[in-house]
Amino acid sequence: MLTERHPVTPMKYCSQCGDPVRVSIPDGDNLPRYVCSSCDTIHYQNPRMVVGCVPEWQGQVLLCRRAIEPRHGYWTLPAGYLENGETTVEGAARETLEEANARVEIDDLYTMINLPHINQVYLLFRARLLDDRFSPGEESLETQLFAEHEIPWQELAFPTVGFTLEHYFSDLRRGHFEVRLKDMIFRRNNRK
Amino acid sequence: MLTERHPVTPMKYCSQCGDPVRVSIPDGDNLPRYVCSSCDTIHYQNPRMVVGCVPEWQGQVLLCRRAIEPRHGYWTLPAGYLENGETTVEGAARETLEEANARVEIDDLYTMINLPHINQVYLLFRARLLDDRFSPGEESLETQLFAEHEIPWQELAFPTVGFTLEHYFSDLRRGHFEVRLKDMIFRRNNRK
Repeated sequence: MLTERHPVTPMKYCSQCGDPVRVSIPDGDNLPRYVCSSCDTIHYQNPRMVVGCVPEWQGQVLLCRRAIEPRHGYWTLPAGYLENGETTVEGAARETLEEANARVEIDDLYTMINLPHINQVYLLFRARLLDDRFSPGEESLETQLFAEHEIPWQELAFPTVGFTLEHYFSDLRRGHFEVRLKDMIFRRNNRK
Repeated sequence: MLTERHPVTPMKYCSQCGDPVRVSIPDGDNLPRYVCSSCDTIHYQNPRMVVGCVPEWQGQVLLCRRAIEPRHGYWTLPAGYLENGETTVEGAARETLEEANARVEIDDLYTMINLPHINQVYLLFRARLLDDRFSPGEESLETQLFAEHEIPWQELAFPTVGFTLEHYFSDLRRGHFEVRLKDMIFRRNNRK
């Protein structure tokens, strides 16, 4: 479920006691944090993981057309925020079931993509569909298998998806996959 | 900085408006969340990443003896929570500088270890020390290079460190490294 939630929300009140927070650098720390003015609780904020997979079936890849913002109507790999209490592999399989009603066997990690400007790390795995049954989940308009020449490259939802698919088909052709690390840093007025 | 902060803190008040939160399943969701009774803000909580590295120098690995709880006095690889605004590689290098005053060139990802019971994912990279200068940072009592036969196996701080070091030296001997995924699930009264 990769939704419109903003990854960093400014904090105004302490979630422990309800009094206002201030921004300061705690003793022994070197970064500004939200700290409660009353009970001194330090509220750390950290990046989130987006977990998903490249679900393959006989050389084709399953994509989902998004029914939600951002990028409504564009195609994506099944992926979303890792939840508390689950492993990265469990999260990737859950997202595939939720978005495409598809069951997968998750294989190795394939891409790790850093998006530090929005405090996200993508972890996308290779995966095999267990059968050819799939259908749109609540967050998808369509689900479809694509061979490499059929991929809607101009209608992909996110650069992370394009990066992963480009390498995936290239690696599939040469018969050897390796984990790929990538930083994608988009700054305001400096999208590249 | 892998500190005593507990990974999940129950939330009592809304950080946006200061009124009490309740636990409920939002529309279109399938998991209970903290939701504000007044302003309806949904407060998502997600796992954190612990990033670090295996800093190598001429076949030896740099370890740090912890000056902080938990596991004060035990040996660990430099690692800590990924911060907002940084990449996983930057975070791993920063932790190594903070804990061991050591400069590293980070190589490939080496271990991804899921700890779903405490909502953490470890991402440990292979790394090369740029020189043989290092010293204890504020959170370390000692820093030392260890060859495989010198590793204090009984005095390692965390199972994640033992798992990573065992495979590291084994892979170093055979001259081939591969990314290793591992789930470590410790439940109360069922540590294994």
